[in-house]
Amino acid sequence: MSGSGQLPLRDYLRSRRDEVEQALARVLPPEAGRLATIRDAMRYSLLAGGKRLRPVLALTAAETVAPADREAAALAMPAACAIEMIHTYSLIHDDLPAMDNDSMRRGKPTLHVVYGDGLAILAGDGLLAEAFALLARDPDDTGRPELAARKLAAIRRIADAAGARGMVGGQAIDLQAVGHTVGPEALDADGLKDMHARKTGALIRAATVAGAIMAGAPPARVAAVDRYAEWLGLAFQIVDDVLDVEGAGEDLGKTAGKDAAAGKPTYPSLFGLGASKRMAQEAADAAVAALAETELDRSRLAEIAQWVVSRTS
Amino acid sequence: MSGSGQLPLRDYLRSRRDEVEQALARVLPPEAGRLATIRDAMRYSLLAGGKRLRPVLALTAAETVAPADREAAALAMPAACAIEMIHTYSLIHDDLPAMDNDSMRRGKPTLHVVYGDGLAILAGDGLLAEAFALLARDPDDTGRPELAARKLAAIRRIADAAGARGMVGGQAIDLQAVGHTVGPEALDADGLKDMHARKTGALIRAATVAGAIMAGAPPARVAAVDRYAEWLGLAFQIVDDVLDVEGAGEDLGKTAGKDAAAGKPTYPSLFGLGASKRMAQEAADAAVAALAETELDRSRLAEIAQWVVSRTS
Repeated sequence: MSGSGQLPLRDYLRSRRDEVEQALARVLPPEAGRLATIRDAMRYSLLAGGKRLRPVLALTAAETVAPADREAAALAMPAACAIEMIHTYSLIHDDLPAMDNDSMRRGKPTLHVVYGDGLAILAGDGLLAEAFALLARDPDDTGRPELAARKLAAIRRIADAAGARGMVGGQAIDLQAVGHTVGPEALDADGLKDMHARKTGALIRAATVAGAIMAGAPPARVAAVDRYAEWLGLAFQIVDDVLDVEGAGEDLGKTAGKDAAAGKPTYPSLFGLGASKRMAQEAADAAVAALAETELDRSRLAEIAQWVVSRTS
Repeated sequence: MSGSGQLPLRDYLRSRRDEVEQALARVLPPEAGRLATIRDAMRYSLLAGGKRLRPVLALTAAETVAPADREAAALAMPAACAIEMIHTYSLIHDDLPAMDNDSMRRGKPTLHVVYGDGLAILAGDGLLAEAFALLARDPDDTGRPELAARKLAAIRRIADAAGARGMVGGQAIDLQAVGHTVGPEALDADGLKDMHARKTGALIRAATVAGAIMAGAPPARVAAVDRYAEWLGLAFQIVDDVLDVEGAGEDLGKTAGKDAAAGKPTYPSLFGLGASKRMAQEAADAAVAALAETELDRSRLAEIAQWVVSRTS
């Protein structure tokens, strides 16, 4: 595992993020002719930067579970890119006027503002479909049946996370809850946690688990990494809610205070700011504790859990 | 191969369609609690009937290329269902106000009319993601590495057909061409053919090819079936355009004359009705000729090609 004697976390994250950026640009090159516009729209959102948390988690999980395997991160890179494509598609669709109606994302006008709603819907659809094309294609499994099995396991996990019990279900719950502070559609604390576990947590877990699977982790390590990522996703979401209250729009690259304005329940609105911050720290600690079961608690993954709680954007 | 001495084609198609209906209902059972609404929305569109041309083509191709294999159609059924899920998602998104703005589909109000645009977008997204979950999961490949390889090949083919060079690209070209009868966005005959080959043809080809792949067809038969389906898709699209002019809304289950009203180029508008009908017949004949190369030209697939040209809805 990548020990603490190596690169400072900030430099490690930047280096991994740069690799992801380069891989994403290669995965989705520009097109000429009639397909130029739709491809440009997909690239506009996919290559707009961002923390790249999910793909970095996939790469870090791969390195962590198979520290002696120099190929591990390379095997996980296609899954890392596919997950960022799926994450980007979900942002494009969430930002549409028919959903959250957001006009800024990652510091730029949202896709539908630039290309119109129709092309934005299609660009999201295209990113989702091509993510699975990439997962099925790379890495090349010719003559390596163990890689074919890993790819199918990763596809199952990622598709479930993206589906109606995962991201799509979470966004549907969110959409139905907007403006309902009382009544059957209103979200209590359990409902809020369930909504986030689906909407954000499922793909964060799938990213981490897919990285471990692609590196050939044994089942016990996959399970530990899965529990880690479940807690990490919770911490990440609570911090997101806190930053939505405290953060500046500039740092976030999106409109701050948006959730409160839309009448959406958040951790601070249900529990208060101080309690929310404590809950985030407890979730990060639980994430690290989950790694301890398979002695991965001094790895980069553990460092990332603490970073998620201390981040300011 | 299924010879002509068996069930009449009409009965064969009905029987296969019934099997597909039952499989689709099993693949997407209702959900309780917070996920009930999004699942109901997905089922509303997926279980609304229709010709089920694509899944039937997948099953028929599987039977045709492996006539001695009683398991062939069963191996192809998950791919058949996944393709119908992807086809349904594309209809849901195409019908949105931001795209074609259609209010009727398969004889019922379109999904966004009933559930709103936001949930309709999400229901489409969910169908697309869950199609890949199904493809990666079924049929069970435990201990059968040859099935894992077939599944990955089918996923690659289907994801490419759904992606930005396939269906999504075709719909983007279509969307950009609306209202442009002159200028760089206007579609000439080549542009129209390219648009349809992507928007409709790619998934019809992928359905047929995926069926053949799942049944374990050798490469020469997969290639013949692919060429067959390319011509079949062209015939199907020309007939669709002809029916849009000649057909009654009631038979079609959607609004007739819609394309002409939207100023979209069609085969009849570019070539006239008579020439369009001749072109459809020539394409169907070419589809059958493609099968002859591997002696599959007296199969159900050949019968289906002739039926596609003679259909009235």
